[in-house]
Amino acid sequence: MTTQSSRVRLGAGLTADQVAVRRHNLSLVLRHLRVHGDRSRARIAADVGLNKATVSSLVAELAARGLVVEGETERGGVGRPGRVVEIAATTLVAVGAEVNTDYVSVLVTNLRGEAVAERRVALDTAAMAATDVLSRLAALCRTVLDPVVREGSDVVGLTLALPGIVAPATGTVDDAPNLGWRGTPVVDVLRTALGDPVYPIDLDNEANLSALAELEVRHPETARELILITGAVGVGGGVVTSGRLLRGGRGFAGELGHMHFEPDGRRCRCGRRGCWETVVGLGALLRAAAPASDPVRDPSVDVVQRLQQVRARAEQRQARTLRAIEQVGDALVRGCGTLVNLFNPEVLVLGGYFAELGPWFLPRLQAELAGEVFAPHAGGCRVELSTLGFSAAVRGGALRSTRRVYDDPTVVPLRPAADEMRGASS
Amino acid sequence: MTTQSSRVRLGAGLTADQVAVRRHNLSLVLRHLRVHGDRSRARIAADVGLNKATVSSLVAELAARGLVVEGETERGGVGRPGRVVEIAATTLVAVGAEVNTDYVSVLVTNLRGEAVAERRVALDTAAMAATDVLSRLAALCRTVLDPVVREGSDVVGLTLALPGIVAPATGTVDDAPNLGWRGTPVVDVLRTALGDPVYPIDLDNEANLSALAELEVRHPETARELILITGAVGVGGGVVTSGRLLRGGRGFAGELGHMHFEPDGRRCRCGRRGCWETVVGLGALLRAAAPASDPVRDPSVDVVQRLQQVRARAEQRQARTLRAIEQVGDALVRGCGTLVNLFNPEVLVLGGYFAELGPWFLPRLQAELAGEVFAPHAGGCRVELSTLGFSAAVRGGALRSTRRVYDDPTVVPLRPAADEMRGASS
Repeated sequence: MTTQSSRVRLGAGLTADQVAVRRHNLSLVLRHLRVHGDRSRARIAADVGLNKATVSSLVAELAARGLVVEGETERGGVGRPGRVVEIAATTLVAVGAEVNTDYVSVLVTNLRGEAVAERRVALDTAAMAATDVLSRLAALCRTVLDPVVREGSDVVGLTLALPGIVAPATGTVDDAPNLGWRGTPVVDVLRTALGDPVYPIDLDNEANLSALAELEVRHPETARELILITGAVGVGGGVVTSGRLLRGGRGFAGELGHMHFEPDGRRCRCGRRGCWETVVGLGALLRAAAPASDPVRDPSVDVVQRLQQVRARAEQRQARTLRAIEQVGDALVRGCGTLVNLFNPEVLVLGGYFAELGPWFLPRLQAELAGEVFAPHAGGCRVELSTLGFSAAVRGGALRSTRRVYDDPTVVPLRPAADEMRGASS
Repeated sequence: MTTQSSRVRLGAGLTADQVAVRRHNLSLVLRHLRVHGDRSRARIAADVGLNKATVSSLVAELAARGLVVEGETERGGVGRPGRVVEIAATTLVAVGAEVNTDYVSVLVTNLRGEAVAERRVALDTAAMAATDVLSRLAALCRTVLDPVVREGSDVVGLTLALPGIVAPATGTVDDAPNLGWRGTPVVDVLRTALGDPVYPIDLDNEANLSALAELEVRHPETARELILITGAVGVGGGVVTSGRLLRGGRGFAGELGHMHFEPDGRRCRCGRRGCWETVVGLGALLRAAAPASDPVRDPSVDVVQRLQQVRARAEQRQARTLRAIEQVGDALVRGCGTLVNLFNPEVLVLGGYFAELGPWFLPRLQAELAGEVFAPHAGGCRVELSTLGFSAAVRGGALRSTRRVYDDPTVVPLRPAADEMRGASS
């Protein structure tokens, strides 16, 4: 990372108010380029309502921080043609990392959100100590990141995704029952395992981060209200309202799997009875689909393979498998009805195993959801399948780390030798 | 209302950007006074980080619009004592109006949120045509407002609260089953009945507006995440996250009463079976508490009287009544558990009949809620009783109309003869 000495120089002579306005405008221009694409300074000025001299100065500072570069000359505009400004594709990268029950995973993206490198490694994390898992994850991060950094990219941040209840503010896992982690200071452990890097390391729930990624791949005008339902043995969710993650008072919002669903139902891993995940989780599906001796219920077999087997049987119209899917589908429709009654989302995204069995679940939900919702036409809610698979949480993690930069571009230090755009004007 | 001719003069010579900054700063100063109370220009300048000359100019404009007035001289400050600036108590008022199953109601507040006048009239609205109900409401508005306007106050806006699904953008009720209204253009009908006043008339769901009012009476630092549960025959709710109402994609969020709760349960007025309100609504309580012939189940008796009777019996420890309360309490605890798992609120407020029977419901929820929630210690959620009674929705309505002014003080025109503070400085 570069030093911050020249940052003081740029800010010299400005009042606190002016610094805040400048920071706001830098963010405005950078976010505008991200959402609307490459364009000339003149066009940015017209779009965001700032004057051209201000925009030129803002673009110069963004370039000096390595956030934007000059691209092709823009054609067809009014007046003297200007060169387009683009979000930098190589100078800065963000990392999403994930620990889940069966694997660890790392994704590196540039500031445009494009994947630069990705690796996922199968690992029986629940059988290992947290520090060992995090060491393996750190090793994977280095393997993926080292070549990227050697080619000159700086890391703006890493966000770690975990299944369970996490405290982003302290970097601690409160309770991740599927990993067996409780009160673990995961961010500190990972930072040490990574050799104490200078970039910030953040922590969030994997369903929350997956919801952010689902939001990102949809059109921002039609998906500011979104719920992602992650289906595995546990059922979780990420809720986005007004384009932002719903966190609640202490960051625990979105525990969809623990909606009260069946009075005196089956015992849940949380200790209570009849939670929604006891009837729609993968365990419920597999119990209904096959006897205990069936390989699809053998926990030593990779869950992805077992799901492929279930899917193959459903395609062959095997009666017990179809009945199991129908039974889970019943409870899925009714629980989704509750979610839509409470949140009135624009999009409900089925992730995890619900997406794998999407050809059965999706048409049913699309046909029956409106019947479960008090508002007319299901309140306008669409149901879609996630297309991100295992990459959703790491993609959301990288996204969260880049958002810091978009919200305040001055968190990225000035690069000493990157003055070529300073003072250029369109 | 005053003319807007002099407004052009104040804005003359400013760019679009400068106008936006000015509007933002006017709002900043006005909201600061509302949250933190009366104070001198010098203190405002220090608090919000603007310079004193700017604050003096902003205060002069707010005064010219009738939004603030000069008060007492501030003592104990540093330097020359300045006169304090206060939110005006008499020049501008806002109106909350409500139609509900048993009554119509009107509340007038000043910009400080203080009640200036209030009236509630019992009316069997479900037995009347919508236009007749709205005529009665308009007559009540005039009765309450006329003296206030005669004394020189201008109305900044009126917000109408209704039980049911409403479309604030078009001013139409989509479906209010308890009133029997469907597709009614209530704002247009009310505006005509009021003689086409110049102030804006808005529309919102009564539970949403009640939640806003509950938020307002609590400390803003400890209640930015709040759920209000309104208990009547129907059960509704208003959800506040990050200090704002959760509306969802089309404004239908918060239909708590229609959470899926009992498989194959009792038929709900929405047509489905086993909705939460079929087991925690007032109907469920009364059915469990008394035989059909009992006066507490006689719909021709005022519901407030019937509830007083139920409460008296509970105080006398009448066995069937206590069993009914216990039974509803069971379902109330479990449903609240679902809400807390999904939203992780800081405060859950019991309104309507839940508040009336608060001495029985509250201790139970406080003791048992944590056992229903996945996050530790119920995610930090407190349970409280509403203290606003029948005034909650109209108070929220008036608040919503004043918020427009706090968000953009320039919606209030300059008052021609109110120049006395112009140019004054602290």
